[in-house]
Amino acid sequence: MGDTTAQLKLTHEGALRVLEAAMASAETQGTPQCIAVVDEGGHLLAFVRMDGAKFLSVQTAQRKAVTAADRRSPTGGLEQGHDLRLSLVTDGRLTNLKGGLPIVVEGQVLGAIGVSSGSGEEDLEVATAGVAAIPGAKTSW
Amino acid sequence: MGDTTAQLKLTHEGALRVLEAAMASAETQGTPQCIAVVDEGGHLLAFVRMDGAKFLSVQTAQRKAVTAADRRSPTGGLEQGHDLRLSLVTDGRLTNLKGGLPIVVEGQVLGAIGVSSGSGEEDLEVATAGVAAIPGAKTSW
Amino acid sequence: MGDTTAQLKLTHEGALRVLEAAMASAETQGTPQCIAVVDEGGHLLAFVRMDGAKFLSVQTAQRKAVTAADRRSPTGGLEQGHDLRLSLVTDGRLTNLKGGLPIVVEGQVLGAIGVSSGSGEEDLEVATAGVAAIPGAKTSW
Amino acid sequence: MGDTTAQLKLTHEGALRVLEAAMASAETQGTPQCIAVVDEGGHLLAFVRMDGAKFLSVQTAQRKAVTAADRRSPTGGLEQGHDLRLSLVTDGRLTNLKGGLPIVVEGQVLGAIGVSSGSGEEDLEVATAGVAAIPGAKTSW
Repeated sequence: MGDTTAQLKLTHEGALRVLEAAMASAETQGTPQCIAVVDEGGHLLAFVRMDGAKFLSVQTAQRKAVTAADRRSPTGGLEQGHDLRLSLVTDGRLTNLKGGLPIVVEGQVLGAIGVSSGSGEEDLEVATAGVAAIPGAKTSW
Repeated sequence: MGDTTAQLKLTHEGALRVLEAAMASAETQGTPQCIAVVDEGGHLLAFVRMDGAKFLSVQTAQRKAVTAADRRSPTGGLEQGHDLRLSLVTDGRLTNLKGGLPIVVEGQVLGAIGVSSGSGEEDLEVATAGVAAIPGAKTSW
Repeated sequence: MGDTTAQLKLTHEGALRVLEAAMASAETQGTPQCIAVVDEGGHLLAFVRMDGAKFLSVQTAQRKAVTAADRRSPTGGLEQGHDLRLSLVTDGRLTNLKGGLPIVVEGQVLGAIGVSSGSGEEDLEVATAGVAAIPGAKTSW
Repeated sequence: MGDTTAQLKLTHEGALRVLEAAMASAETQGTPQCIAVVDEGGHLLAFVRMDGAKFLSVQTAQRKAVTAADRRSPTGGLEQGHDLRLSLVTDGRLTNLKGGLPIVVEGQVLGAIGVSSGSGEEDLEVATAGVAAIPGAKTSW
């Protein structure tokens, strides 16, 4: 490989599409959610806190997204105990709570979504709906 | 729903009433306490550290109140292990220690009280007395 | 005043409307922006980072919004030197950079918008367009 | 001097008396304030945020009180520039903003009051009224 390489990036238009699809899923679910979309470097692209969602989840949703972008896999799969060590060494930025999913297209990680305010299963369902809004994005793990 | 909605808020007069009722309960109990009252967004409204209460409890009482306001339920009900993950992802702001109660009137969360310096049961008793000072506030969970 | 009082709140629908209007202004301007909308307590409601906007502006936009919500006035009006003291005492959360505006309806602060990634004047122009999306919101200062 | 010495301490009853006198002054003034009372070690004893006071002032009021207790003198008297160095080296806990006063009785520092949300002059006036509530406390500097 040479000095440079090309990488697919998520646009803000794409990030907002993810947000809208996730919001629609949360409305169907009946659970107000915090929803965050980050780029491949973990920087925030788009965010919404729905009416009634928890204020501490503003940060939690972002950290789930950061974790999924970092590890290129859904959050929640780490061994118990080991996950606490990883949280501590990252000052809490890495979390093993369910509800974070990477957005992967053609094998490249474009970013991630993190959802927080419901149960882990509810959060994951909304995150999955968000990822599915991007054509070609990987939705099964 | 439109762009705006109306919500009940706790006044400082209300917050001080909660504080006084909680202090009276702590005096009856014979345990000096730190008592914090926060608004629905977790911002401090009123606080007292009674003579002999622990100085680290200044922060603990506030974090119990923040947690109860955020989760809209009494602190202490989270599954062990899961609670540590939630503490880590919130930089310690969320705590599962007993002694935090939301102040709920007409189904709306107006804020919360957090009490710390005694045992979990003592803290909860004082918090309950505080919430009961607000007419119509929910006191059974 | 009694224990409770009623207050207007911004819905997430309202916050997204502010975001959209601000994005449209930034597109007309030709400057990609970070745009944050917070509630009256400074908690994030909605956010977008447009393609090409600066990643450090993710935080700057939020802090402009927090400052405008806290002070109930546009950012940028503090005396030089004094503004540094206020930034230090708030751990950098308060900023005097231009581009933050409160959202005020019927004399009540519902929240605020913060915009960052352009010049101060560009940021303020985009913020103003965002606020104007809420019917009845104050737009001249 | 032997191994131990006796020190006057402010009780929570005393701290609440300071709070009430300061609140009465703020009401007369017509400016909602955040008011904090700390002990001689800078630990919070009592606090109130009046309706309409700024949420970032929750921390600012406490830091003014901490600074006054630490330096045993009113805040605001440091040389410009030097005060920024002291803020930086204390992670912002020391502030030179006006509105902090030590509570000194018989030459001993019992604690301090910090007031924040108005102008520096308004904050100082309310702090002075608070200190005056303690019999024998020093009120001129």
